Amino acid sequence: MKYFLAFFIFLTVQATAQTPKLYNHISNEVHIIHSRVLNQDRQVYIHVPKVDSADRNKALPVLYLLDGENHFHILSAYIEYLSHWHTIPPMIIVGIINADRVKDLTPNHSLINFDGKVDSNYKTSGGNGPFLNFIQQELMPYMEANYKTSPFKIFAGHSFGGNTAINCMLTRPEMFNAYIAISPSLWFGNKYVLQLAKQKLPNLHAGGKKLFYSVGNEDGTFRNDVLQFDQLLKRNSLRNFDHEYKYYPNEDHMTEPIPAYYDALRFVYKNWKYDVTK
Amino acid sequence: MKYFLAFFIFLTVQATAQTPKLYNHISNEVHIIHSRVLNQDRQVYIHVPKVDSADRNKALPVLYLLDGENHFHILSAYIEYLSHWHTIPPMIIVGIINADRVKDLTPNHSLINFDGKVDSNYKTSGGNGPFLNFIQQELMPYMEANYKTSPFKIFAGHSFGGNTAINCMLTRPEMFNAYIAISPSLWFGNKYVLQLAKQKLPNLHAGGKKLFYSVGNEDGTFRNDVLQFDQLLKRNSLRNFDHEYKYYPNEDHMTEPIPAYYDALRFVYKNWKYDVTK
Repeated sequence: MKYFLAFFIFLTVQATAQTPKLYNHISNEVHIIHSRVLNQDRQVYIHVPKVDSADRNKALPVLYLLDGENHFHILSAYIEYLSHWHTIPPMIIVGIINADRVKDLTPNHSLINFDGKVDSNYKTSGGNGPFLNFIQQELMPYMEANYKTSPFKIFAGHSFGGNTAINCMLTRPEMFNAYIAISPSLWFGNKYVLQLAKQKLPNLHAGGKKLFYSVGNEDGTFRNDVLQFDQLLKRNSLRNFDHEYKYYPNEDHMTEPIPAYYDALRFVYKNWKYDVTK
Repeated sequence: MKYFLAFFIFLTVQATAQTPKLYNHISNEVHIIHSRVLNQDRQVYIHVPKVDSADRNKALPVLYLLDGENHFHILSAYIEYLSHWHTIPPMIIVGIINADRVKDLTPNHSLINFDGKVDSNYKTSGGNGPFLNFIQQELMPYMEANYKTSPFKIFAGHSFGGNTAINCMLTRPEMFNAYIAISPSLWFGNKYVLQLAKQKLPNLHAGGKKLFYSVGNEDGTFRNDVLQFDQLLKRNSLRNFDHEYKYYPNEDHMTEPIPAYYDALRFVYKNWKYDVTK
């Protein structure tokens, strides 16, 4: 009798369940943009937050995210959740999907890998310049033309993407208002970006800017390089420049972005208050 | 000339961008199930991970998540990302959407709110029993009939949902293999669940089970209640029962789930190793 009842419940549950629908509560889109600068089609994932009717005409900050295929989902979940609870403002995310990751996300040409060996995977390295041109000259105008954007822009990356974010801050500080560099590969290309920091930081126009940088429990010189970068920032103590360093001893290179992107968003918006009147 | 060029780039970028597509890289579905136990239609969000071709026939653990409308997106992002990097196994998430939250997620009938005042919002309270019947007798069979599920099941909740998870562990320990209770509202109903813990823990069949519980910087007795619960667990030291308590002094009641759900997943799978041969 017990088994018969269980079978009966099973059948009725089966019968009364409706056809499942696709979950589409999040407004995430896939765009393909032809870049003349890079002479290729580029794919971006765009998260457009649902805003309250009161906010409908409000311009939104834009977070430009590197390695979009890897971190877009987590960032969109954080931003949707935290803005719903008024911890940060709603914002647009543009997740840039990699084409040639080594090319786009390295500052200089180098064939030497993390282990100090010649690596043919690195033969296209050194394309940060044209890649940042694409963002500045094509992607940003595209976003500004198609969405109601505010001037506040964030640039976020991890590993090679973190190194690219710091390289961008040092060479084009005007491009973004806040930079997030999670475990930046400062080791790359004979520590090119670390050398550049020594040279550029003393005269960097970084007033009003923010920078979050962090490291996990990676091997090698990862943490020492980030600590050296942290020392450079402290030594130069740039006026009205807000930076935060975080160390995640329990996170490896691939798990670190989960807590670090959350902490980075909280850092960038630590002085932000939800204004009910707006 | 500069402005003309900028305008030209603007036009050409506009012209060459293709029609955006909906981002649907995540297989999340919305199901509506008629519950005979509760005599109502219930909505659930279901996350089905993309699995490698090698894993195609592998049975997947199922995480039953309370307050699905609030935490489903973050949990699906964590599980997709962490399983991709082989930190935890891929698993199915069932996010249960609230109908009458106060009714379903409270263990006993009480009109007294957090501030000790009579609150008419609580007039339907005390429905944990039928709600857990729905999960056990209808939702679990539905999941097992429609998906390739393994026997390993997790029950996760926050606030009233955390209290419900602990109530379930104390009254139906056989229902799940792991319980996650983030800032459980142990204060509710004259500390009903805390009293129940005193009574049930000495003889609880909790062998092989896991429990993660945590608290943020909430006011009132929140933290003391969780600490008292922690003391009860330590005093009873149940055989082969693995539990972890975490305190988040920098997180409030609504931000705590972001780090806590991540830490909870890492705790549940701390001894899990990716097996490349499977």
